[in-house]
Amino acid sequence: MAKARAVIILAAGHGTRMKSDLPKPLHAVGGRPMLDWSLALAGQCGADRQVVIWGAHGPEVKTRAEAAGAATALQDPPMGTGHAVLCGKDSLTGFDGDVAVLFADTPLIRTETLQAVFAALDSGADIAVLGFEPENPTGYGRLIENASGALTAIVEEKEASAEQKAVRLCNSGVMAAPARVLFDLLSKVTNDNAKGEYYLTDIVALGVAAGHTARAVRADADEVLGVNSRANLAEAEAAFQARARTAAMEAGVTLIAPETVFFSHDTQIANDVIVEPNVVFGPGVRIETGALIHAFSHLEGTSVGENASVGPYARLRPGAVLETGAKIGNFVEVKNAVLHAGAKANHLSYIGDADIGAKANIGAGTITCNYDGFFKHRTIVGDGAFIGSNTSLVAPVNIGRGAFTGSGSVITSDVPDDTLALSRAKQENKPGWAARFRQMMQARKDKTKA
Amino acid sequence: MAKARAVIILAAGHGTRMKSDLPKPLHAVGGRPMLDWSLALAGQCGADRQVVIWGAHGPEVKTRAEAAGAATALQDPPMGTGHAVLCGKDSLTGFDGDVAVLFADTPLIRTETLQAVFAALDSGADIAVLGFEPENPTGYGRLIENASGALTAIVEEKEASAEQKAVRLCNSGVMAAPARVLFDLLSKVTNDNAKGEYYLTDIVALGVAAGHTARAVRADADEVLGVNSRANLAEAEAAFQARARTAAMEAGVTLIAPETVFFSHDTQIANDVIVEPNVVFGPGVRIETGALIHAFSHLEGTSVGENASVGPYARLRPGAVLETGAKIGNFVEVKNAVLHAGAKANHLSYIGDADIGAKANIGAGTITCNYDGFFKHRTIVGDGAFIGSNTSLVAPVNIGRGAFTGSGSVITSDVPDDTLALSRAKQENKPGWAARFRQMMQARKDKTKA
Amino acid sequence: MAKARAVIILAAGHGTRMKSDLPKPLHAVGGRPMLDWSLALAGQCGADRQVVIWGAHGPEVKTRAEAAGAATALQDPPMGTGHAVLCGKDSLTGFDGDVAVLFADTPLIRTETLQAVFAALDSGADIAVLGFEPENPTGYGRLIENASGALTAIVEEKEASAEQKAVRLCNSGVMAAPARVLFDLLSKVTNDNAKGEYYLTDIVALGVAAGHTARAVRADADEVLGVNSRANLAEAEAAFQARARTAAMEAGVTLIAPETVFFSHDTQIANDVIVEPNVVFGPGVRIETGALIHAFSHLEGTSVGENASVGPYARLRPGAVLETGAKIGNFVEVKNAVLHAGAKANHLSYIGDADIGAKANIGAGTITCNYDGFFKHRTIVGDGAFIGSNTSLVAPVNIGRGAFTGSGSVITSDVPDDTLALSRAKQENKPGWAARFRQMMQARKDKTKA
Repeated sequence: MAKARAVIILAAGHGTRMKSDLPKPLHAVGGRPMLDWSLALAGQCGADRQVVIWGAHGPEVKTRAEAAGAATALQDPPMGTGHAVLCGKDSLTGFDGDVAVLFADTPLIRTETLQAVFAALDSGADIAVLGFEPENPTGYGRLIENASGALTAIVEEKEASAEQKAVRLCNSGVMAAPARVLFDLLSKVTNDNAKGEYYLTDIVALGVAAGHTARAVRADADEVLGVNSRANLAEAEAAFQARARTAAMEAGVTLIAPETVFFSHDTQIANDVIVEPNVVFGPGVRIETGALIHAFSHLEGTSVGENASVGPYARLRPGAVLETGAKIGNFVEVKNAVLHAGAKANHLSYIGDADIGAKANIGAGTITCNYDGFFKHRTIVGDGAFIGSNTSLVAPVNIGRGAFTGSGSVITSDVPDDTLALSRAKQENKPGWAARFRQMMQARKDKTKA
Repeated sequence: MAKARAVIILAAGHGTRMKSDLPKPLHAVGGRPMLDWSLALAGQCGADRQVVIWGAHGPEVKTRAEAAGAATALQDPPMGTGHAVLCGKDSLTGFDGDVAVLFADTPLIRTETLQAVFAALDSGADIAVLGFEPENPTGYGRLIENASGALTAIVEEKEASAEQKAVRLCNSGVMAAPARVLFDLLSKVTNDNAKGEYYLTDIVALGVAAGHTARAVRADADEVLGVNSRANLAEAEAAFQARARTAAMEAGVTLIAPETVFFSHDTQIANDVIVEPNVVFGPGVRIETGALIHAFSHLEGTSVGENASVGPYARLRPGAVLETGAKIGNFVEVKNAVLHAGAKANHLSYIGDADIGAKANIGAGTITCNYDGFFKHRTIVGDGAFIGSNTSLVAPVNIGRGAFTGSGSVITSDVPDDTLALSRAKQENKPGWAARFRQMMQARKDKTKA
Repeated sequence: MAKARAVIILAAGHGTRMKSDLPKPLHAVGGRPMLDWSLALAGQCGADRQVVIWGAHGPEVKTRAEAAGAATALQDPPMGTGHAVLCGKDSLTGFDGDVAVLFADTPLIRTETLQAVFAALDSGADIAVLGFEPENPTGYGRLIENASGALTAIVEEKEASAEQKAVRLCNSGVMAAPARVLFDLLSKVTNDNAKGEYYLTDIVALGVAAGHTARAVRADADEVLGVNSRANLAEAEAAFQARARTAAMEAGVTLIAPETVFFSHDTQIANDVIVEPNVVFGPGVRIETGALIHAFSHLEGTSVGENASVGPYARLRPGAVLETGAKIGNFVEVKNAVLHAGAKANHLSYIGDADIGAKANIGAGTITCNYDGFFKHRTIVGDGAFIGSNTSLVAPVNIGRGAFTGSGSVITSDVPDDTLALSRAKQENKPGWAARFRQMMQARKDKTKA
């Protein structure tokens, strides 16, 4: 049976370079706070015990971690990464499995990569360190391996020999060890260094000296991209987007201009979906086969059925559900509303808190008046109904199956099936009025200029 | 007199990696199916005889090819490229000119490049092969030329000597020969190879051995980009867009951010047009000098006249015609409608199936109610008319020259010239109602929370 | 005391490769004509005397320069850069300070860079030349310095020795000298060269020969990017945008996809603002801390207060002011209007020439009818008012504090505080009408097809 697993997530750093009132771990990549990426990664690797180390300046980190079911421990004052991990020791009292240390500003480690770190422990290593090969290794600590593949040392750039500098495998900071080994070695780490900090990295030298075996595990460089500034945050976002776009195309999605399509961490998109340029998928979107997402669309918390058509310029907000073949056209907003199969709202409409029947047609400029300033109310439109252009549907209201509403009507009471509802003032024509008005206004305008 | 020309277009491949129900040749680049790119290329080179080879899994290819006037031949089962070309032989019975073989997944060959392939035959070669120099030639067959420039062999990577591997000129697969030479050589190709397939490429070795002269013609690497996956499709699209953007800028168009402007294969755009960031041109667009296309606009099947202004957020659909100086503003959709010189629709409107007179002004929120659920009807607005905001124009309807409509009116019958038309309920004020309503609703809300 | 400073801006070139009716110096980068970049640069370096050299084909350059307070001088016919500078001599009659020569097609020189050019004169040089190190120096004149750092010559590529070609520092063309030195040396420049032109560059050789000291000042390569074609213009725009995006991120702004956000030369944006993908900032925008700018928004001449929310698909035009916490949602246009603290217009509205009170709620589809075809009129909405969906507010009109308007109303006269205003025709239901209509139309449709 596999050993129990835990993670300690370091989330106490100040993140000064972010220049933000929001603690760094709560800045988002792919629509999800970086802290949540680490928590999700841990969960996917079977690490049910999760300890988030927070700092005194960032109580929002504690709040969010607890809301996600993680234990938390305060590091105050901060005295280095080794100290931070030790702060989590009490939260793991009685835990006798393996512990990985993650960083809440390093959101993009793949599940299989952290699995490989834990697997290195399963296969006999006492310490596993995640390494990567950056394009330019200058400045990073090097992971030195011996001929049999064991990790023998982590050498900092400034202490590295020429031969060691030629090593391309660098230290990401992420490591794992059995809890007993980890905390035992950490208790021996000293702060005898320039910054007076306790470094997690030091456990490797201490461990190797004590006869433990260490092993390096390899990640792609983009996985261990750390976020210290808004520019880094943008780089991490770009790395995530590149990954998501590639995955979508491999799954059979056409992205006409992949670099202009933005996914969230949880976007689900089936094959033979076509996504035109400039589309943003916020969290919680699922798109089924054959759907067409036109340019300039923005979707969030939305389900789009087979062969449905969206946009251009469609905004689908949380709770929007388009069933098979439904169509949302330009400048249309849908929120908390279902469009049943084949229903259409093609132009300039707001469909909120509504249920639109199959094959119903919502005319241009239709507005569901769902809010009275205090409460939201629902609009029901029956199958095959035809809502005339510029109709105001004052909710709560029920439009029957096959009913019609006249253009420009304000519908305040229910309309039975197959009924035409109108609220329309009679048209009055005033001959010559426009000519006189024009003459008068032009004279006034000329006077203003004079 | 030039020899007659034909093309055989190989369009029978499975395209499994596309993961699509749509046959690969029908996936689009620059708004046009790849098959159509090959057909258009052939036409531009004077190859009026066109044979499309389709596979049993892709009858839509046959349908589309025939609709375009091409002959078609089924390859079933597929037994290699040489076999595919042979399948087209009967379709060229009696044809005694030159035949080029194209691939329906290679859409970006320039007209002048295929012209050069045919020209090589005109100037004495018996076989012409299209080559290109990729950044990294590894894996491609090399085109070996002798000192006098004749093509002597195509050598596959795995059989190439070190010297041959140093050759950068690679085989694109596209080749041409007189029909008699082509089919004669193809009849001698065997399937004595690992895959048991008949390779078109083999005709070069057979031809040279038989004393024919072969010649290589050079293409740019981006021209022969083959599409086997959605990622390749995106690369081909990017290559097309790069070409189109460069051409537009060379013609005197300002693209503020070229990488955000998307053209179609047939976009026509004159000098001194300014295109802001994030604009999509679907097929069938023509823009004249001095027009300004603001950000976030989407145009398709549209003609934009001199000094007209479009967007931001304008959607011009097929049949939209903006004459000189006309203006379409934000969140306005135009479909099958002419805006004569100087007409304006600046905000939040739908103009469908309409004729808007010169200098007419369409107020914000105006909707042409053109659809009754069964038929589309036209709206005519006369020169200089002023359509008040939020007007519903219930078609068919005719608004006279210089007429006015009152804001919020629903216009159901014609309005004579210079006439004001109104359909408006009298405003009623209910003093204190809002205060009482607020009090009541707030109480209800408090109760709900309690 | 610092010496007086002047600039001569060369803006007389034809710019033939732009293929434009607009003179090249008036093409814009970052939303500002290139000429204005040079004028602003001069002003920031304390060069109050500014002379713009224009050509006979570009009188618009003269007009704009004069409007900006610069002196102008005509160069006609053009006889080289040296001649162009001499054309400005009379405009500096009596001026005895330092003169820098700028080019109106080189918009991106940093203030600190031109300051360094002037500073070189302050610290003893007689001539200062701005150099840069391009990735590939081939084709540029090289700036040759001696061991003590003095500039000894500018050597053209074709006359350079191998050693000189190895020099990476190239001539940008920008230079400065005391007015007396500059014009004295220019008077000695000859046109004894292939093109028969008088070259400004020649003053370096003449000056060094006459015993003057010259010095090179270094610029980044992107600063001296010259614009000769639309492609160059796009490159300059890209360089500007890269600079602006980096600056914003360094200041603590989150740009989720920096490459999709477009700034203007004067965009001001505070820390902890989040900008989603695909946002365009036109000139004159200021955004305060904590504001959220959603995707697909377009802002120009707009002020966005703390924690305000904009978009997606919001268009804020000149004069839009959002106070703290105000919210503009999708498909909403705001022009010359203030939204006081906490006011909201979330959907499909046009708010023009208006004052929207604190916490007022503007319902979906609301239109301010601000234009009567001749004059613009204002709409005032009081604090806490609730404008029902699809309301037309016919300006001039005043909606009182806490007032309500019914959905679909056309409000033509003032509404007192706490009052409900309605203009609504009674709803009429015609049972069975829709069924009969459908039957009739379907029959007609069938007949049409038959």
